[in-house]
Amino acid sequence: MKKIFFTVGPSQLYPTVPKHMKIALQDDIFSLSHRSKTFSDIYKSTAANLRKLLNIPLTHHIFFTSSALEGMERTIQNTVHKNSFHFVNGSFSREFWQIAVGLKKNAQKIEASNGEGYDFTSLTIPKNTELICIVQNETSTGIGVPMHFIYELKKKYPSALIAMDVVSSIPYTTIDFSKIDIVLFSVQKGFGLPAGLGVLIVNDKAIKKAELLEKKNISIGSYHTFPKFLEFEQKFQTRETPNVGAIYLLGRVADDMLTVGINEIRKQTEQKAALLYDFFENHARYKPYVQESFRSKTTIVIAVNGESEKIVSKLSEKGFIVAQGYGKRKDEHIRIANFPSHSLTQVKKLLRAFS
Amino acid sequence: MKKIFFTVGPSQLYPTVPKHMKIALQDDIFSLSHRSKTFSDIYKSTAANLRKLLNIPLTHHIFFTSSALEGMERTIQNTVHKNSFHFVNGSFSREFWQIAVGLKKNAQKIEASNGEGYDFTSLTIPKNTELICIVQNETSTGIGVPMHFIYELKKKYPSALIAMDVVSSIPYTTIDFSKIDIVLFSVQKGFGLPAGLGVLIVNDKAIKKAELLEKKNISIGSYHTFPKFLEFEQKFQTRETPNVGAIYLLGRVADDMLTVGINEIRKQTEQKAALLYDFFENHARYKPYVQESFRSKTTIVIAVNGESEKIVSKLSEKGFIVAQGYGKRKDEHIRIANFPSHSLTQVKKLLRAFS
Repeated sequence: MKKIFFTVGPSQLYPTVPKHMKIALQDDIFSLSHRSKTFSDIYKSTAANLRKLLNIPLTHHIFFTSSALEGMERTIQNTVHKNSFHFVNGSFSREFWQIAVGLKKNAQKIEASNGEGYDFTSLTIPKNTELICIVQNETSTGIGVPMHFIYELKKKYPSALIAMDVVSSIPYTTIDFSKIDIVLFSVQKGFGLPAGLGVLIVNDKAIKKAELLEKKNISIGSYHTFPKFLEFEQKFQTRETPNVGAIYLLGRVADDMLTVGINEIRKQTEQKAALLYDFFENHARYKPYVQESFRSKTTIVIAVNGESEKIVSKLSEKGFIVAQGYGKRKDEHIRIANFPSHSLTQVKKLLRAFS
Repeated sequence: MKKIFFTVGPSQLYPTVPKHMKIALQDDIFSLSHRSKTFSDIYKSTAANLRKLLNIPLTHHIFFTSSALEGMERTIQNTVHKNSFHFVNGSFSREFWQIAVGLKKNAQKIEASNGEGYDFTSLTIPKNTELICIVQNETSTGIGVPMHFIYELKKKYPSALIAMDVVSSIPYTTIDFSKIDIVLFSVQKGFGLPAGLGVLIVNDKAIKKAELLEKKNISIGSYHTFPKFLEFEQKFQTRETPNVGAIYLLGRVADDMLTVGINEIRKQTEQKAALLYDFFENHARYKPYVQESFRSKTTIVIAVNGESEKIVSKLSEKGFIVAQGYGKRKDEHIRIANFPSHSLTQVKKLLRAFS
């Protein structure tokens, strides 16, 4: 029996991935020099497909990291001399904050209660804040922050840069890049690819900030500084030998998604999310964990009365792999991914297996 | 016509890689959670195979990075407060030095002339040096530093840590780990794997140094500090979502190499190197670039009187891909990889194509 992975990342591969891997082997993609024209063409094509799919304007550059965590680290290193501010509502947003602390920044934070969104109305962020960091979709708790809250930040604090992690909501989330300076994610979630590649989308303003820090003789890192990223991106190369295969696969899958159409993907995501939440709203024992207005469409977290182990194991026997809760909520929750890799039919089958 | 990649990395895939990729797809390796027991078993098995193959003692821990450059950066961050010392004889050893400069360390260096080794006899390294960095095999120039010179460093400067990059000589090079504190490489060269994974082998002494710096409130990085690496290695996990597939493939290829036997691999490497160097010693127009005692067995650099482009293109027509010289020596040199992925028969065919 072939399993279906509803885990929140790594997750089910996008259906076309095995085919593309086979072609990559045939075409010697894994043996290509990262200084060859063929590789530059791959970088160029992957970036172009991402631009089209996610509507990324030319004000923003597309860099490749090895993970979302690396994206967070490079962001802090390159844009913060002293003061960052963090929204924390789960393990990954906490990690963003901890990375700033590890890099000896004055990292302040606001925390949201369990399963709740932030109170944006009463919020004040210190005036000297250089970078505001927010995880738009918390994979650990299933909280999705509505984008208009994040856009408001830019209006209210125009001098600060805004960095947004969309690791488990992209490509579903529609982003107005004119209101966000830095966007980061990794590819093993919504893109349905093997883990080992991150994408870091950075605008000119953020790069200028890095250049300013560098001029002041403040360390902004070494081989992966924003100016280095930019220097190599201009020739569609990377400073290091990158995960060539993953950059290739990302380009192919983005192209496949363009064929389906991003609007269609978003519509399907919402249909599947509605199906999942409705099912658990009406379930006798299990309920959605997050209050309605902050519910993620892509990471569905269900409170299961401490029965997660039993559920995960029973579903696994039927060929469905779902995740337990994150960290200390391991027993209390199950987490179900709703990515473009998961078809409506598969979601229906999963829910039938529940009944 | 199927091409053979004699490029110095990425290079020809190890012959078993396509088979292992197919199995990885069948067994859902790319969808596995990095927090699952199955992933821990993979980490454990890959580390065990590497230990056996390279004779790594339990004093040393095996961590995974995304590239050799990341290995260099993490090494500097975690072991140097102020003073590092670098041997520079090509582009990659220069990069190691530049990484230390970027991290605002007092990074001193000794440089070797083109195609020559270092003069170890007249060398003095400052007493306050915390870390000595050496690239044992320079992929850019084809210089291999004999190991006994490096072991001498440990004797002469016992208080400094020694970090050695063996990116293009492993697994050929035999390492006495009791004399080296940190060893780093990536997998797209001697291991014949797709690019996107680095290995960082670190002993307890180097980890203690990182802990000491951390106690003194000196930043040693964020998610990839030595203590964090260690904390996760103890449970055979990684802090970030890693390149799961690459860790799996590395374990499988290391296992295949154990079946062949490391001594056999080393013997074959020397046979093929002798064949290649002999051929060019006796060639009318092209000659080995490096003086005999410092010649790499795995990265053969040939001076070709500015004809590299012509040679590379003619060989390519016959299905053999070799590399031009590195950087400003692009036209002057060709570089031929001699990795375990390259069979004696293939080397013979390459040399016939030359005639």
